[in-house]
Amino acid sequence: MQELEERIKKDGIIREGGVLKVGSFLNHQCDVELFDHMGQEWARIFKDKKIDKILTVESSGIGIACVASKSFNSVPVVFAKKTESINLDGESYTANVHSFTHKRNNTVIVTKSLLNPGEHVLIVDDFLANGCALRGLIQICDSAGVVVEGIGIAIEKGFQPGGKDLRAQGYQVASLAIIEDMDAETGDITFGKCALCSE
Amino acid sequence: MQELEERIKKDGIIREGGVLKVGSFLNHQCDVELFDHMGQEWARIFKDKKIDKILTVESSGIGIACVASKSFNSVPVVFAKKTESINLDGESYTANVHSFTHKRNNTVIVTKSLLNPGEHVLIVDDFLANGCALRGLIQICDSAGVVVEGIGIAIEKGFQPGGKDLRAQGYQVASLAIIEDMDAETGDITFGKCALCSE
Repeated sequence: MQELEERIKKDGIIREGGVLKVGSFLNHQCDVELFDHMGQEWARIFKDKKIDKILTVESSGIGIACVASKSFNSVPVVFAKKTESINLDGESYTANVHSFTHKRNNTVIVTKSLLNPGEHVLIVDDFLANGCALRGLIQICDSAGVVVEGIGIAIEKGFQPGGKDLRAQGYQVASLAIIEDMDAETGDITFGKCALCSE
Repeated sequence: MQELEERIKKDGIIREGGVLKVGSFLNHQCDVELFDHMGQEWARIFKDKKIDKILTVESSGIGIACVASKSFNSVPVVFAKKTESINLDGESYTANVHSFTHKRNNTVIVTKSLLNPGEHVLIVDDFLANGCALRGLIQICDSAGVVVEGIGIAIEKGFQPGGKDLRAQGYQVASLAIIEDMDAETGDITFGKCALCSE
């Protein structure tokens, strides 16, 4: 998606160790118009799929998913929570997820009553790198008996294995920007192309 | 706001100790259409205010704020983060916040470059009870030299002091549902009225 690639080039900050900071528009400040365009692109890609619900994980996926929902007939958005809260039901689906960013293990949790067997789900998240968070969400979907119709990602790090692994398993992964290479010293970024995307 | 009050009566679950669970539509699953109507109501209430940005705090405020932004000319949404992340700038505004829900102290953080002195901000959050989270956000706004034009809340617990205290300090607090009393045994809820709201 050209708009997203251009925004990453303009406002993304590359750090050593494969870190890309996009807090000024994606996951600390939210450019809601950009999110709307991302939602429209996922809706175009998944137009032949039945989507009953969007599933994401706190925190950075929530804004993207809620704005994108507009392009999917405003279906409900469920976000998995990262730690047990006293406000959560005991009746929950859980999965363990390792966060490379925060260097810790999280448990992601969805209350059982929010995912009904047979529902068709689009998973949305801001980043795909190693794919740990997504595998946790997929595990929850499998436990709930819901069908993962597709995965919408804003930025995939193509130099990490998550995207390739998920596609090899047959998942339809629509990453709107795929970074094949980036250089913290020069600021250069090389983008790849997602087979599902139009531009 | 009648739609929100009715939804709380229909789908809210009251627990002992003043706990109201609204995860099925507000803060675990997100009813995006409801969020859109909430945004329209805040836009009506704050129509004479200049709003450059919406500020909220992760996680439950993000979806509401991002959808509400549409009714404020799609202004950017900034969400304060709750713990230091390695992806955050060292240059940040911080405030300490006690969470009664999670029984712990958090630090909330906003990267300095996302709040510019003189900007006009609407603060949005899902719940207002003791007001700790909001006071943290206000402290950050004061540090940044931005003007808090108003505070948009989905559900205020009127039997806790946060809302009264903030109004006494002169803040325009628009709570779309104010719960004056609720009974875990009978399920009865008594709503109050927000002076700024139309219904």
